[in-house]
Amino acid sequence: MTEMFQRVDGRAFDEMRPVRITRGFTSNPAGSVLVEFGQTRVMCTATVEEGVPRFKKDSGEGWLTAEYAMLPSATHERMPRESMKGKVKGRTHEISRLVGRSLRAAVDLTQLGENTIQLDCDVLQADGGTRTASITGAYVALADAIAVLKERGVVPGEPLLAPVAAVSAGIVDGHVCLDLPYVEDSRAEVDLNVVMQEGGNFVEIQGTGEHGLFGRDELAAMLDVAEKGCAELIAAQKAALGL
Amino acid sequence: MTEMFQRVDGRAFDEMRPVRITRGFTSNPAGSVLVEFGQTRVMCTATVEEGVPRFKKDSGEGWLTAEYAMLPSATHERMPRESMKGKVKGRTHEISRLVGRSLRAAVDLTQLGENTIQLDCDVLQADGGTRTASITGAYVALADAIAVLKERGVVPGEPLLAPVAAVSAGIVDGHVCLDLPYVEDSRAEVDLNVVMQEGGNFVEIQGTGEHGLFGRDELAAMLDVAEKGCAELIAAQKAALGL
Amino acid sequence: MTEMFQRVDGRAFDEMRPVRITRGFTSNPAGSVLVEFGQTRVMCTATVEEGVPRFKKDSGEGWLTAEYAMLPSATHERMPRESMKGKVKGRTHEISRLVGRSLRAAVDLTQLGENTIQLDCDVLQADGGTRTASITGAYVALADAIAVLKERGVVPGEPLLAPVAAVSAGIVDGHVCLDLPYVEDSRAEVDLNVVMQEGGNFVEIQGTGEHGLFGRDELAAMLDVAEKGCAELIAAQKAALGL
Amino acid sequence: MTEMFQRVDGRAFDEMRPVRITRGFTSNPAGSVLVEFGQTRVMCTATVEEGVPRFKKDSGEGWLTAEYAMLPSATHERMPRESMKGKVKGRTHEISRLVGRSLRAAVDLTQLGENTIQLDCDVLQADGGTRTASITGAYVALADAIAVLKERGVVPGEPLLAPVAAVSAGIVDGHVCLDLPYVEDSRAEVDLNVVMQEGGNFVEIQGTGEHGLFGRDELAAMLDVAEKGCAELIAAQKAALGL
Amino acid sequence: MTEMFQRVDGRAFDEMRPVRITRGFTSNPAGSVLVEFGQTRVMCTATVEEGVPRFKKDSGEGWLTAEYAMLPSATHERMPRESMKGKVKGRTHEISRLVGRSLRAAVDLTQLGENTIQLDCDVLQADGGTRTASITGAYVALADAIAVLKERGVVPGEPLLAPVAAVSAGIVDGHVCLDLPYVEDSRAEVDLNVVMQEGGNFVEIQGTGEHGLFGRDELAAMLDVAEKGCAELIAAQKAALGL
Amino acid sequence: MTEMFQRVDGRAFDEMRPVRITRGFTSNPAGSVLVEFGQTRVMCTATVEEGVPRFKKDSGEGWLTAEYAMLPSATHERMPRESMKGKVKGRTHEISRLVGRSLRAAVDLTQLGENTIQLDCDVLQADGGTRTASITGAYVALADAIAVLKERGVVPGEPLLAPVAAVSAGIVDGHVCLDLPYVEDSRAEVDLNVVMQEGGNFVEIQGTGEHGLFGRDELAAMLDVAEKGCAELIAAQKAALGL
Repeated sequence: MTEMFQRVDGRAFDEMRPVRITRGFTSNPAGSVLVEFGQTRVMCTATVEEGVPRFKKDSGEGWLTAEYAMLPSATHERMPRESMKGKVKGRTHEISRLVGRSLRAAVDLTQLGENTIQLDCDVLQADGGTRTASITGAYVALADAIAVLKERGVVPGEPLLAPVAAVSAGIVDGHVCLDLPYVEDSRAEVDLNVVMQEGGNFVEIQGTGEHGLFGRDELAAMLDVAEKGCAELIAAQKAALGL
Repeated sequence: MTEMFQRVDGRAFDEMRPVRITRGFTSNPAGSVLVEFGQTRVMCTATVEEGVPRFKKDSGEGWLTAEYAMLPSATHERMPRESMKGKVKGRTHEISRLVGRSLRAAVDLTQLGENTIQLDCDVLQADGGTRTASITGAYVALADAIAVLKERGVVPGEPLLAPVAAVSAGIVDGHVCLDLPYVEDSRAEVDLNVVMQEGGNFVEIQGTGEHGLFGRDELAAMLDVAEKGCAELIAAQKAALGL
Repeated sequence: MTEMFQRVDGRAFDEMRPVRITRGFTSNPAGSVLVEFGQTRVMCTATVEEGVPRFKKDSGEGWLTAEYAMLPSATHERMPRESMKGKVKGRTHEISRLVGRSLRAAVDLTQLGENTIQLDCDVLQADGGTRTASITGAYVALADAIAVLKERGVVPGEPLLAPVAAVSAGIVDGHVCLDLPYVEDSRAEVDLNVVMQEGGNFVEIQGTGEHGLFGRDELAAMLDVAEKGCAELIAAQKAALGL
Repeated sequence: MTEMFQRVDGRAFDEMRPVRITRGFTSNPAGSVLVEFGQTRVMCTATVEEGVPRFKKDSGEGWLTAEYAMLPSATHERMPRESMKGKVKGRTHEISRLVGRSLRAAVDLTQLGENTIQLDCDVLQADGGTRTASITGAYVALADAIAVLKERGVVPGEPLLAPVAAVSAGIVDGHVCLDLPYVEDSRAEVDLNVVMQEGGNFVEIQGTGEHGLFGRDELAAMLDVAEKGCAELIAAQKAALGL
Repeated sequence: MTEMFQRVDGRAFDEMRPVRITRGFTSNPAGSVLVEFGQTRVMCTATVEEGVPRFKKDSGEGWLTAEYAMLPSATHERMPRESMKGKVKGRTHEISRLVGRSLRAAVDLTQLGENTIQLDCDVLQADGGTRTASITGAYVALADAIAVLKERGVVPGEPLLAPVAAVSAGIVDGHVCLDLPYVEDSRAEVDLNVVMQEGGNFVEIQGTGEHGLFGRDELAAMLDVAEKGCAELIAAQKAALGL
Repeated sequence: MTEMFQRVDGRAFDEMRPVRITRGFTSNPAGSVLVEFGQTRVMCTATVEEGVPRFKKDSGEGWLTAEYAMLPSATHERMPRESMKGKVKGRTHEISRLVGRSLRAAVDLTQLGENTIQLDCDVLQADGGTRTASITGAYVALADAIAVLKERGVVPGEPLLAPVAAVSAGIVDGHVCLDLPYVEDSRAEVDLNVVMQEGGNFVEIQGTGEHGLFGRDELAAMLDVAEKGCAELIAAQKAALGL
């Protein structure tokens, strides 16, 4: 890595974009958060519904599920609205499932009672990293929703576990970079999304080499910067929650 | 109308909720506006696409179309996401069509060239009047998008016509009220949505008596307050646009 | 308005097309009516189903809902069949909802028991005014279906309220006209649909200026002819029902 | 077969229900026919569209296709509307395909030019035999549509072939019967639909033993009455067409 | 019929392609059979589910239903996957219904208890006769599934009836042929599918003259070869089942 | 890891299930392979279509896409057929996308001409590892399809790159295991899918901790066994291809 390589926005290779987490962004859901990673802005909400899906009936446990979507005008080129096409894209399904799996690591379903938490991550503005911003913001919305449940006295125990956050890393022109904006992401050789829990363990990692392969060394280098990023995000989550 | 009747939020019968119009709410679309009528918040964007639908091909004219949608967490009770159900509700279709018709009154398609303006009105938070806020905000987004087109030199003439705004009126417990929030709207005997253009003429009126009928006198009284509301909204639109 | 303006079919400005209401058009539904406004022909049926939708369960009240559709060969140019496209058009949804709202004004749901009345308005031949003919015919089918229910002794009270009818008015070449056929409707500056109940009050009004705006005076003039039309339609409904 | 067996409506075993064929039932399609087999009533229309589907492009030949559907209120128990369910039932597909295949036997596609004839068979009232009535009525609508094409001078040759008609036969309580109404059809041991062309040859036969098997003798007996029925239907078609 | 006519694969006119029936083709379903008619290969499985559809609830009887589908790569030209298009083709529906009706003739639902047998016929390789191979193979899978049910002691009686098999016949270049492969099928004047039960009676016959008509004599000749084919298939089924 | 832990099928921790790759499994597609990882059996086919999707038009390059699906009877409990539900599950989309990305690493699209290779991976029998078996088998089908293209002389260069294979690893009861069958997979704490190219670099890694987190050490241990597995699979691919 030579000194000549410059990131688009002048950041250091292992530097996050400015992160902002705004609680109480809207008032109807139990938890509502606007999360911003630079120009990427996602509205993350957590709604509580009594009861659980059929496969959890009479288990005494709760459930958590998530839906991710892009507003049609979030991207540079407007994208057709999925509801009007009558079809949800594979990418949307894939990210919704990732968000759900990741946040289920942040909640003890046995302590939730037979309640369902529905997370919605709606991207208002997209500039790379929408899935990682979604996971990071959703944790804060989840924490607020669980606080509401506890206040109402409907959850027996303490369902909220340690914070979960996510960040992307990648290899751009041969350089490992943290938190890729769209212009870097679209030409990255390798793209890695990392979901971590406070304490330094992984909830999920997904590394893809669309325009190149990667070896164990490069994986290690990307994990290094991702760990740094997740630690900073978890600090931001805790600050937002006043912890 | 006795002195005893009080509106939920203490407003006068012919008083609008606080209206805020924020331009440049997001950066990707040519026009992007956050419009707020009290607690109702709608993101209105205008995107320009080259070309026109088939029925306008080779007409030398442009086209304008609109899509309205609610985020699932916008309402007090979360609503299922239409994309996931694979079906768009009748109400959504109905309002999308209303917004499209209303804003086509604000644009001279013959001056647009063979370009299409796509309006998207996504409700972030719903508290009554989402369709009227959508129309009002969409005009401002439309104006910004047309300014971009003119700057780029792709429109031959002046496609933007005089401002169009919309407001609801209704009869609640026998009293004519302007700009109903959800709690009033849900128990109103009569509900009237009025779309007007600067100058005082109607683009569209829709009056419905779900829980009661209404006569010519009541219609006149509702139109009176609606005219006042629309005039104020048009003033707010012009102020936002610096006109 | 000069003497030179002539309507396509030689009618006076405030004259309805010939109206025919045929009861017992088919034999399976509890109520089955063929309604004709000139060349527009709609089959309106009312079917009674035990039970109510979930949101009405255990309310002790009934429900009424409506579906409107065009046969593919009803129009001059054949339209694709909605079932084959797997999508119901916004216009279809919008009219179905209008018919349902309008006819709910003609029935006292508290007197219906937990039964559902399903109205179906299927357009056999379209020549303008299909939605207003649908509403007008559906009232007669509804009356027949309620008579069947009463005969069977399954409704406790008297659910049928005063007749509801609907008509269109519009401004064509600057002239107010009643009951527009397709050729007038397609070039009208303003189009107004009015649903009234016997007694002269409005159930719903929808006025749209696709090719022009309209002021209070024009609205009043259109409402005048619409009131005349609705009164005649209600007389026709009562004659058909032998009242 | 004993003398004791009586058909529901007193007909002889090999007797058709009263058949009525009304041309010009509606005015927009090129051909529009109401066909009645007793209480079964189907509106059959033929519309001509320029051009052919992709698999026939540049073949110099035309195409013919058909869609069959039931109005929701056509049956004794109302059936959900397929467009609202977003799914076409297997039975509907199956009959649409049968009608299309049958009528393609009645047209010489090489003489049609690159035009498409679209047949629509919409059942207004169902009492058994809706598919056979559809085929029988569709031929007359097809003949009228082809006459329109020839008048316009757009078809080079004579596309219309000899009449095609269809009828059902079945075995009810061990007795062979012709043209089954719903009450017989629903308890028939065997059900046979026969499509024939003038001259006595088969276009299609479909025999099903839902509640029983059948042998060669029973097949022969059913084909005998079906041949008689088809001959009578073809006479009725020719009479309706003034041939 | 002259001596000059030769079948594509040198078979006699009334000769079946080589038939292979492999039981236990996969291990998860209660019955799993690979059936081969020459190059046509279909995987037929029978799965048992507790309970019955709504229209059979509390009848004390069971139900049997079937689904037929082609893998996208089964045909010479790949066909789009129906799940991806969100639409099932009419042909697929039609064959699924045929398989279900045919196999219901092979089971006494009153002896099945309130259980549902689901048959799946998935075509791995298509070379004509996929529907007849499906029916023939499904009987063997059904027999194996019922044996499992009996072993488990959940069926009170003996639900399995005599074998049902199916074969196609047709007229190719004026010659009656048995068991048509794709190259013959696609140019046959007449195509007849015959479903028979052991003992020589018909469950279903479907004869279609897409490129020609057929008379009683030709029908008889096709039924003759089909009877021979079905007898051989039933012998193969019994051999496979060790009966 | 104690000596007490035994894998369900007695394998060593880093031992693959028996792998079988059968070329020419069906005859219509250009490449057709049956791949087996123990009881998991997937039919992988590669079909070549002329032309490319719109986003690749006039690029001079080819395209490769993939669809993965389970036959309804592939799993222990039968799963509803996606085509009949009209919806493709998120899991199906996710795996289809993974297979497509993985195999695009094995082909040089610039050497393919404007042709599209469609891979279909249809699971006949599922016992864990269906996505990794799909990728592994698809490479062999791809190689066969490209050989056909080259024989036909339609590809200018050499599009086939080094072999790509995939395998799962996981942590079961605290033990790292290679190539998990369903019973291990369903109770694994961590599940890792690894796609590698010959030479030892990663194409994609996806690690998920549904029932537990994982650290860098555990990731390394899983990658170690996965590398061993992939090397063996690549040897099997090359043996199957006679390389």
